[in-house]
Amino acid sequence: MSPATPYLRVDTARLRANVARVAERAAAAGVSLRPHAKTHKCAEIARLQLEAGAVGLTVATIGEAEAFAGLGVEDLFIAYPLWLTEDAARRLRDLAGRADLAIGVDSPEAARRAGSLLEGTGIAVLVEVDSGQHRSGAAPSDAGAVGAAAAEAGLPVRGVFTFPGHGYAPDAPATAADDEARALRAAVRSFEAAGLEPDVVSGGSTPTLEHTHTEALTELRPGVYVFGDAQQWELGTMTPDAIALTCVATAVSHAGGRLVLDAGSKALGADRAAYATGWGRLPAYPDARVVQLSEHHAVVDLAGAPLPALGSLVDVVPNHVCNAVNLADVLWADGEPWPVVARGRNS
Amino acid sequence: MSPATPYLRVDTARLRANVARVAERAAAAGVSLRPHAKTHKCAEIARLQLEAGAVGLTVATIGEAEAFAGLGVEDLFIAYPLWLTEDAARRLRDLAGRADLAIGVDSPEAARRAGSLLEGTGIAVLVEVDSGQHRSGAAPSDAGAVGAAAAEAGLPVRGVFTFPGHGYAPDAPATAADDEARALRAAVRSFEAAGLEPDVVSGGSTPTLEHTHTEALTELRPGVYVFGDAQQWELGTMTPDAIALTCVATAVSHAGGRLVLDAGSKALGADRAAYATGWGRLPAYPDARVVQLSEHHAVVDLAGAPLPALGSLVDVVPNHVCNAVNLADVLWADGEPWPVVARGRNS
Repeated sequence: MSPATPYLRVDTARLRANVARVAERAAAAGVSLRPHAKTHKCAEIARLQLEAGAVGLTVATIGEAEAFAGLGVEDLFIAYPLWLTEDAARRLRDLAGRADLAIGVDSPEAARRAGSLLEGTGIAVLVEVDSGQHRSGAAPSDAGAVGAAAAEAGLPVRGVFTFPGHGYAPDAPATAADDEARALRAAVRSFEAAGLEPDVVSGGSTPTLEHTHTEALTELRPGVYVFGDAQQWELGTMTPDAIALTCVATAVSHAGGRLVLDAGSKALGADRAAYATGWGRLPAYPDARVVQLSEHHAVVDLAGAPLPALGSLVDVVPNHVCNAVNLADVLWADGEPWPVVARGRNS
Repeated sequence: MSPATPYLRVDTARLRANVARVAERAAAAGVSLRPHAKTHKCAEIARLQLEAGAVGLTVATIGEAEAFAGLGVEDLFIAYPLWLTEDAARRLRDLAGRADLAIGVDSPEAARRAGSLLEGTGIAVLVEVDSGQHRSGAAPSDAGAVGAAAAEAGLPVRGVFTFPGHGYAPDAPATAADDEARALRAAVRSFEAAGLEPDVVSGGSTPTLEHTHTEALTELRPGVYVFGDAQQWELGTMTPDAIALTCVATAVSHAGGRLVLDAGSKALGADRAAYATGWGRLPAYPDARVVQLSEHHAVVDLAGAPLPALGSLVDVVPNHVCNAVNLADVLWADGEPWPVVARGRNS
């Protein structure tokens, strides 16, 4: 029996090809690969990535780290500027007994606080720097001061990291990759001026991957590449035939001559970047656009194509696959349910 | 101990006031109230609504109906144009033994299909009509034909319903309520011309509530009113001091002089309507805007207000509360966890 729609379906052949392609690229460039597991949150995919040579996983939260440590993953980096509470520190100390663990910091205050709560645990820090997204991250020239604060607070300082998230825009990936290399080099100089030796210089993202200046990095942390999504499709950074996750939906209404599917924002996510042409794309109808999205309805403009019959199954590629996966309890892979074990682990 | 951030907090005094206010409005107008439970998906809130006089609950999916029937709710309307599979029909038949159950249809084909699978179960249908949102729903003048198809297929035909969703825009609620009344009256005429008597004429939504022509309806189905959200705030349809759900976040970074919170699109949802001024609002900073949203970061422009210290807790009102709730496993209400029992029940 097929699952009831809407559900998320994984094309495992494409998934394996995506995992292999990026693993090979990292190996050819001589850099480590530490994929971001926030995209898939699944044991099965983590295992594929580690078997393909990943040195460990990247996660965004302590809860994701707990989920993957619980699956036996032994090397985890929480690539986030954590501000630790006593309880968060207790959870990290528990994790440190089960995995090689590193966390992000982006200010001397956060570094000192982490030191006061984690000294002696072996938990390492990496300093986040801002390479142009202007989200979190210290200025690259301040990386040494943040690292020095962590070292003085008694923590092992492993290196620096950035996320070139401003590469998520048309024609932006190459420039963002240039910015990333420049920021990481400046962060390394700042570390060296503070008497610190960065062992890890970490960056990377799916859209910038082909442009990454791998000579400036030791480690790549892309996430979305395992599945791809409509954002990658529309940015031109993955082709539609590489996309390994779709939401299978049913045509439930032809009201007003429209195609209405039962996949809404509670299945696809509500993401719509400024450059997106709609709320998802349909592989079988490349010219179609999802022109209206409610919680349980996608209204599709088919650009003149004939309406599929009521009851037809139609695949939709979500705009942002990380958020679509985080809505589902399971992904369906070749008829098998893969639990989204870290779903909702936001803290 | 407080939950780790980000988490969703319910102000139960405001929640109770919102539940009472809309119940009183419905009672004063002499119409039934059947609140949409997709907003909260919680046993505790369903109970409050039923205790305040709601005749039953509205849900969007069979899975939500199963969740609420499992909690003992005995009157459920799936306000959605279902296209039934054999398995969906089997689940509905199971439900029919436990609750008074009605479903939506919006075409003669769907009505005939429902009849072929559900005849003799007592499951009733309501015909959805389009009052101007142009999503699903038959043309009002076709309501009678759809109803007649359902009756001929052996199903009890209970009436008509609409959702005036085009009221979700600035200055649109009053006009949408006018459209709703016009569409429902036309649907009733169409029913009567087909020899059908609609017992239920159902409409309503939170933004249009104050404008609803209650003389044209027998039943209201608002959902969001229990909590409110930044959409209602920005539409002016609920005041900030009525908003009963916030996402509690921590100030994790001051990078670049910005306020960065740990509540991102995996906690708030990624919704951003065309009229929204950002990705959520901050009650303590009415002039502030969430100007950038990632999965685990909200970057806030404080409009000149002083930065709260790192580690401070800051409340964020999600843009669209239904999608925020559907991301969480629990809501925190006066320190007590309320399970989101129908989370992720999309089918």
